Formats: sequence, structure tokens, C-alpha cells
Amino acid sequence: MEVLIKANERVDELGRNGYRIIQNPDRFCFGMDAVLLSDFAKVKEGDKVLDFCTGTGIVPILMEAKTKAASFKALEIQEDSAEMARRSVSLNHLEEKIEIITGDIKEADKYFETASFHVVTCNPPYMIGQHGLANPDSAKAIARHEVLCTLEDVIAQSARVLKMSGSLYMVHRPFRLAEIMATLMKYKLEPKRMQLVYPYVDKEPNMVLLQATKGGKSRITVEKPLIVYERPGVYTKDILDIYYE
Amino acid sequence: MEVLIKANERVDELGRNGYRIIQNPDRFCFGMDAVLLSDFAKVKEGDKVLDFCTGTGIVPILMEAKTKAASFKALEIQEDSAEMARRSVSLNHLEEKIEIITGDIKEADKYFETASFHVVTCNPPYMIGQHGLANPDSAKAIARHEVLCTLEDVIAQSARVLKMSGSLYMVHRPFRLAEIMATLMKYKLEPKRMQLVYPYVDKEPNMVLLQATKGGKSRITVEKPLIVYERPGVYTKDILDIYYE
Repeated sequence: MEVLIKANERVDELGRNGYRIIQNPDRFCFGMDAVLLSDFAKVKEGDKVLDFCTGTGIVPILMEAKTKAASFKALEIQEDSAEMARRSVSLNHLEEKIEIITGDIKEADKYFETASFHVVTCNPPYMIGQHGLANPDSAKAIARHEVLCTLEDVIAQSARVLKMSGSLYMVHRPFRLAEIMATLMKYKLEPKRMQLVYPYVDKEPNMVLLQATKGGKSRITVEKPLIVYERPGVYTKDILDIYYE
Repeated sequence: MEVLIKANERVDELGRNGYRIIQNPDRFCFGMDAVLLSDFAKVKEGDKVLDFCTGTGIVPILMEAKTKAASFKALEIQEDSAEMARRSVSLNHLEEKIEIITGDIKEADKYFETASFHVVTCNPPYMIGQHGLANPDSAKAIARHEVLCTLEDVIAQSARVLKMSGSLYMVHRPFRLAEIMATLMKYKLEPKRMQLVYPYVDKEPNMVLLQATKGGKSRITVEKPLIVYERPGVYTKDILDIYYE
């Protein structure tokens, strides 16, 4: 099957099952956060998985390669991104496994039934509001700032679509950790597992990975630190294992 | 001045200002958590400081040596511990700076006025309830389990006695992190700074240090990991700096 690659787009190898992804550097290219999230999320055989804010579709495509999930749905509000993600799905012959839906998370009840997923994943926009944004309508602004989707939208909809004992897996910035925990608990998603990602062993963390379980008991496991660089330009063994295991 | 040392008690050097502390190994001996808390807490010149669950009085005694606080008050529910802490205060000639009060945190309004402290510190009992306790009335059980004082008691009373913009500094176990954050926010103490303490760089953390500020804005700084051991028996430079800087 032929898949169209448009001007300014590139095709990158994912190093998993021979999968590739179409990206447009003018819009957004996936980063380490998506790779770490796809590794942190635990999916059992036969699970139904939903990815919010899917962008290029990177998270479900990586997770399809790594897990035995039954199916993936993925929501994206920007039609241009959703259309590109659909072409990546076709490029990898995953039309039977991954469905990309164009739509607004605030209207997720139009697309997804209550209590219908085992797992939700989300790599949401990290930055609050539109402060300092020259162009809040740009694809990059929408991917990075809470222009069209807030933390509370993600958590409220995750709580709705998850089955009891199902989990939301999210990657975010540590500076919002207290707000994230409080919002999760407000919607009865109990924080159960957390890992902080430190660029170097002697630096502040720049990412946090979180698992929150619908109806879970109050007890969180904080995992060993995930340290990215041994020294400048040299990844730690933990990171190499996640990328190439 | 002469200070009585009772049977089963010992006197330990603190390595600060020549200060010493009286401890009874049958009751409780301070650990690294108290030392890390006394270092993590930031106190300005002239501050009034209150320590809840003071036990031997270790936290205010260490902080008196390290800071320019105006005065310390410290609450302890067990009269035997409070009386021993008072003798440690006398041993170090700190009667003018540190006052040990015997009393129940649930009745803290009897002893401490609302909005009267710049800083509150607390190294509370870590364990929930009395599960598996052979002797819940023992001094050790009371120090380690929430027999006489819960997390919510500590946070509610800290919120009451702190001045606006004043901070609570607490050390606790990571498995209760989500509950701690939610309870802090319930009482309008905003988590502002957190550090996880990992025994080794490749192990789960066993302590968390937290600063929460009365009336603070929602944004938390997660600090670099504090790693205790370089290898078995050998402390990291960070830990040596805290003990001997």
C-alpha cells in the first residue's frame, strides 16, 4: 500500500518491529517523554487502550510494538495531526489495531463509552495557560500549552472512560506534581506508582511518570530514580534498555 | 549545672556546637531522618519555630545549632520523653532558646496561638494505624505508628499555627506521598519543595522531605535526588556535607 508523505514531513525509524513514524518538524516531533511513557505503561494481553492528546500517534504505535493489547484508540484535536497519525498507522499496517479519532477531549463522551478501557495513556501539554505565546493557534503551541486541553480535562475524562481497577499512565513536568496528585484524587484515580526522571544524577528532575488507578487504595510506590545521562552525550544503561531492549 | 542521666540512658555527641543529646535505646533513638529534616528546613534570622512530635528534642537542638532562629518550641505527648528532652536542653544550656512542652497535638490550641510561627517542623510517626503492634502503648510504638497522632493532626495544626507564607517542613515515607500532598492542599498548605532520599542510586527512595507553604501558589520544585550511600558503608558527599559541613 502506498502512503503519502507531504512536503516538510519526514519518516523516522522507531527501532521496534520495523515501525516508522511520519513527523513534521514545523508541527511537533516526539521526544524522550513519549518513549518513557510507552515503557512505563503496563498493558496486559487483551487490554483495550486509549491515548489522549496523541499528536503523531507515537504512543500507541510504540505500545503496539511492545505489548499484547487488543486494540488502541487515540484522540487528537488537530485534524492535520490526526490525519498524519492515520498515515503513520497505515505505513505500519496497523489499521486493524490502532484507530485515530479527531475530536475534542472535552467532548470525549461522544466517542468513548464510560468504563470501557483498561488503560489510558496521555502525554499532555505541560505548560499552564498561554503565557508568552506569540501564536496560541499554532500546532506547536497547542501541543505544549494548555490551549485546548487542561490537566483536569485529561484526568476527568480518564476517570470516566477507565474500567474499575484500570490505570491512567501520564508523563508530565515535576513542577505540577502537587496539582496532578490532588486532581487525580479528586476524580478517584489513586496515584499508585511514580518515577522521577533526572537528566543527571545531580540535577533536578525534568519529567515525572505517574500511574493512577481507578478505585485504588492509598499507597504509592516511588520507583528508583531514572537517570538519563551518564555524562554529556552518553545515555545510562537504564535509558539504553528502554530504547533498545 | 548538673544534669541527671538515668539508667538505660546514653549521651551522644551531635557534632554541632559541642551539643549532645540524651537518648534511651529502649524508647527511641534519632535517625538520619531527623538530621536530614533539620538540614532541609530553611529558617531565617529571628524566626519562631515549632517542632511537633519532638521526641528527644533532636530536631530543635540540631536546628538551634545551624540557624539564627529567635526561639524554638517543641511539643511531645509522652511525659517521659519530654522530660528527657528538657534535660538535653539543659545539658546544652539552651533553656533560653528551646522550650519543651508536654501535650497532645490534638489540643495544640491550648499551647500555641493561631498564626504565631514562621516555621513548623515535624518528624511524625510514619506507619498507619496499629497493625501488627504487640504493644501499642510502648514508647517505640507511639513514636513509629499513628497511635496518638495522625498525619492529618500534624497538617491541620501546622496550618493553624503557621503565619501566612510560613512553611511546614516534614520528613515521611514515600508510600504516603499522595495522601500527604492531598492533605496539605486540603489545609491550604501548598507543597513547594520536595526531595526524595534514595539509599542507593538504583534503589527506591525510603524517605521524602517536603516543604509546604501557607497560602503558597501551585508550583513545586523537586530537588535533585539525595542519595545516601556511594557503596555499602560509604556515605555520598551530599550526606557527609549535611552531617559535617
